[in-house]
Amino acid sequence: MAHRNRTEIRANWGDCDAAGIIFYPVYFRWFDECTQALLRSVGLDQRSLRDEFGIVGTAAVDASARFTAPVTYGDLLRTTSFVERWGTSSFTVYHRFDGEAEVMAVEGREVRIWAKRGADGRLRAEPIPDAFRGLLG
Amino acid sequence: MAHRNRTEIRANWGDCDAAGIIFYPVYFRWFDECTQALLRSVGLDQRSLRDEFGIVGTAAVDASARFTAPVTYGDLLRTTSFVERWGTSSFTVYHRFDGEAEVMAVEGREVRIWAKRGADGRLRAEPIPDAFRGLLG
Amino acid sequence: MAHRNRTEIRANWGDCDAAGIIFYPVYFRWFDECTQALLRSVGLDQRSLRDEFGIVGTAAVDASARFTAPVTYGDLLRTTSFVERWGTSSFTVYHRFDGEAEVMAVEGREVRIWAKRGADGRLRAEPIPDAFRGLLG
Amino acid sequence: MAHRNRTEIRANWGDCDAAGIIFYPVYFRWFDECTQALLRSVGLDQRSLRDEFGIVGTAAVDASARFTAPVTYGDLLRTTSFVERWGTSSFTVYHRFDGEAEVMAVEGREVRIWAKRGADGRLRAEPIPDAFRGLLG
Repeated sequence: MAHRNRTEIRANWGDCDAAGIIFYPVYFRWFDECTQALLRSVGLDQRSLRDEFGIVGTAAVDASARFTAPVTYGDLLRTTSFVERWGTSSFTVYHRFDGEAEVMAVEGREVRIWAKRGADGRLRAEPIPDAFRGLLG
Repeated sequence: MAHRNRTEIRANWGDCDAAGIIFYPVYFRWFDECTQALLRSVGLDQRSLRDEFGIVGTAAVDASARFTAPVTYGDLLRTTSFVERWGTSSFTVYHRFDGEAEVMAVEGREVRIWAKRGADGRLRAEPIPDAFRGLLG
Repeated sequence: MAHRNRTEIRANWGDCDAAGIIFYPVYFRWFDECTQALLRSVGLDQRSLRDEFGIVGTAAVDASARFTAPVTYGDLLRTTSFVERWGTSSFTVYHRFDGEAEVMAVEGREVRIWAKRGADGRLRAEPIPDAFRGLLG
Repeated sequence: MAHRNRTEIRANWGDCDAAGIIFYPVYFRWFDECTQALLRSVGLDQRSLRDEFGIVGTAAVDASARFTAPVTYGDLLRTTSFVERWGTSSFTVYHRFDGEAEVMAVEGREVRIWAKRGADGRLRAEPIPDAFRGLLG
């Protein structure tokens, strides 16, 4: 079963829009933070990915979210994140944010590639090494 | 045919991440800006929606994007946005961003509801009036 | 002596610019988060300020910061915040962020007013009640 | 007299906080955008600074702003930016944003250094070349 990581996020004043609810692009910033925290929970970060695995990073090629309950200033979100699917050179991170009273507020997915820079300077998806998959799988 | 609105967006320094490409959540901020610009192009904004139509706003309930070509600092994006689909109480805004040389860099969708505040204080999707659909349809 | 509040902030991937260091406007977002956390540490938030004290909020009229050591992705900042000065209708919140090895990375100040909405609909600075000052002073 | 650059910025929905006015850290993001636009207006950008002048960038070491009139969703700001002061290895960019009816909404300053990476890998302020000063002075 996939390794899961949990964090808590406080919905801050500046994360809200003029209607007083979270400005939805902020959720994607939090998705990225949760993915970084997921990596950190197994001893990795963008720097070690670069140094140990020789990649530029785990660039997102697709992202999506469903907003199922409004979140407002001051709310505490409980986040759960894990790798839901492994492709050859990409993987999908699933995120779920629960608000007060365990009600799901948001769920979403990021598809990320194992991005190397080719000889021509362009980013390219490369096969994911087993060592990486083994840590998160 | 749906009314289309076009804008230009400059990819700024602070929109990039440490790998020098656009931090993907920024695209969703731009989607929202493009939707606001689409509304403005037919003489509407969140304030007139509230005052003339009595709604809280057009809250996003779903958002997704595909990132098909990297965008970096200084690039100029040409955006095209329109309502792609009308539901009874929701509508889908489609966005396409082209980079240099007309190459599509990003495309995405926001599903937005016609959000009223009910007597219980909660947001609720209500049927979209023809007057609104007529302007954008 | 002023009540001090401390938090920890992780410098995230998307907080960095293309040079790999924190994009400086992000520090001001964190200042605001630290001020909200300072209020929360004495049982207040923007909502209770509005409901109990009848104000719109504590709007910033001035903000400044010195960036004394670069902060990069993954760094953990230890924050300290307190009210440094009380005026009749404004107060100054001081923030200090220390990086690894206790080195000060950033310090800054926000001047905030006790903002009420006048009969003409405009925001206006009003005298700060003793009850508020007593909690933070 | 210093070279001045002017732009227009639309205050967007997501730039506002829950009180419906611009979340103040956003002004600093706009300051940075205005500085980039100032550089672009004389044919420079962070990339040409790096390639032609061998620096990492023009890192901010100090930033400050005064918020003198509230700005809200939909407002159009007219910006003016120029180098106000030249030091040996730093320079100060002044920004002024005028709202509707030519009323100043915000003014602020960024102190930026001419940042090179030393042999030890650390950023260091170096003397600003005349060629750069000549373009903006």
